[in-house]
Amino acid sequence: THARFTFERLAVGTAAARAEMFYSFMNMRRSVRFFSTDQVPFATVKACVAAACTAPSGAHLQPWHFVVVQDQSVKAQIRELVEEEEKQNYERRMSRKWVSDLDPMMAGLHADGIRKPYLTDAPFLIVVLKQAYSVRADGTRQENYYAEQSVGIACGMLVAAIHNANLATLTSTPMGAEGKIRELLNRPVNEKVFLLLPVGYPAATCTVPFRDSEALRKPLRSVMSVV
Amino acid sequence: THARFTFERLAVGTAAARAEMFYSFMNMRRSVRFFSTDQVPFATVKACVAAACTAPSGAHLQPWHFVVVQDQSVKAQIRELVEEEEKQNYERRMSRKWVSDLDPMMAGLHADGIRKPYLTDAPFLIVVLKQAYSVRADGTRQENYYAEQSVGIACGMLVAAIHNANLATLTSTPMGAEGKIRELLNRPVNEKVFLLLPVGYPAATCTVPFRDSEALRKPLRSVMSVV
Ligand SMILES: Cc1cc2nc3c(=O)[nH]c(=O)nc-3n(C[C@H](O)[C@H](O)[C@H](O)COP(=O)(O)O)c2cc1C
Ligand SMILES: Cc1cc2nc3c(=O)[nH]c(=O)nc-3n(C[C@H](O)[C@H](O)[C@H](O)COP(=O)(O)O)c2cc1C
Repeated sequence: THARFTFERLAVGTAAARAEMFYSFMNMRRSVRFFSTDQVPFATVKACVAAACTAPSGAHLQPWHFVVVQDQSVKAQIRELVEEEEKQNYERRMSRKWVSDLDPMMAGLHADGIRKPYLTDAPFLIVVLKQAYSVRADGTRQENYYAEQSVGIACGMLVAAIHNANLATLTSTPMGAEGKIRELLNRPVNEKVFLLLPVGYPAATCTVPFRDSEALRKPLRSVMSVV
Repeated sequence: THARFTFERLAVGTAAARAEMFYSFMNMRRSVRFFSTDQVPFATVKACVAAACTAPSGAHLQPWHFVVVQDQSVKAQIRELVEEEEKQNYERRMSRKWVSDLDPMMAGLHADGIRKPYLTDAPFLIVVLKQAYSVRADGTRQENYYAEQSVGIACGMLVAAIHNANLATLTSTPMGAEGKIRELLNRPVNEKVFLLLPVGYPAATCTVPFRDSEALRKPLRSVMSVV
């Protein structure tokens, strides 16, 4: 059954100003790779995850799970798994092409080579898992259509929520270590690690790859067209 | 080269309140399938797309393109392509399983069966395209690693921006019509239609599938765990 949807229209100018302000605010976000170990209230992080979970999803399947890691030794184990894989990726698994493609982009991102201190320095590490399928009460599988898109959208809301909460994050992918991280966290086999997001304050000495305003992002005219 | 990242810390309580407010506000979003034809300022929609384009992306490749369709006849052609495919999907292409899986979820979503008036009623239709690869100046291909995740994240920010701008949308997928829509819009072959988002005000008589607060979304304890 359907229910009436109540919606209150703001004055057009008010809404337009809100839209501009949101853009300006989001435009200040940068990916942070150097975190302070300063604590952050758990309730703040929880509210950010709750915001992510309001995302739309294909057939309302909500094919996601978020593990908020605050235990230092679990963070350290995840970091170890990621660094070990990264070492192997760079040393032999990745094609030369992938490494050379990324080189100009990635230069300077990893000040410490394959070391990823951000996975342990930030007080929280959110592990996002995508449920490729769900298991019904009777044990049968239900395919989660559009799971990849749905989890991506939820992660976009999560990043926006974290930024809005005056915190920093890095959307990072633990290439190759997904399975081991899932096992470490005792998550079921229908789930796959999608992103790792350390969450906290930037370190006092935090730096980001320098990009002047021209290079910061592609100009809107090249990524948007109007018909 | 890296540059110092400047970051201002708000009082912890202020940040916590912002996080809660963002969650409450996002929690009011619903997917809208019945739109008013009332106009919306283009600048507002443009600011929402600009906000989406601040998203992080794998190796900063920004593998997205947004076509904002306002031309009524182009919207009508897209709708025709989508409805034609949808008809075929339901009649023969989709497995019985997919249809029966969705049936309880989707019941009532499409009051008019396969008709999708929302694609033409809303003043704007944003077509999001994912660039699976880019073409360099010398004509060679550059794989866009993590394109799917990156575009998903940008779409999450877009949905948040639209909601923040006092507008409604539907994250919809034109299953099977992606290629034809891309051709209609004269977009290059390295792009694939990812989502169609009608943007506007809900119709005065807009309804949404009824879900009481329990059923609205999975409870947080089932989608978040803490370690
Ligand atoms: C990737 C994706 C694809 C979707 N495709 C459709 C669609 O084709 N048609 C439709 O009516 N709704 C579609 N939806 C919307 C979902 O049905 C909706 O988000 C879900 O029922 C939850 O409702 P809510 O957004 O109102 O919270 C899609 C959502 C996502 C994220
Ligand atoms: C799906 C995805 C995966 C990413 N993986 C990594 C990563 O493994 N390591 C890293 O340092 N940055 C990673 N990033 C962050 C990007 O490098 C960053 O978003 C991009 O350089 C743009 O910078 P900005 O976020 O500061 O605007 C990833 C981003 C996305 C969206």
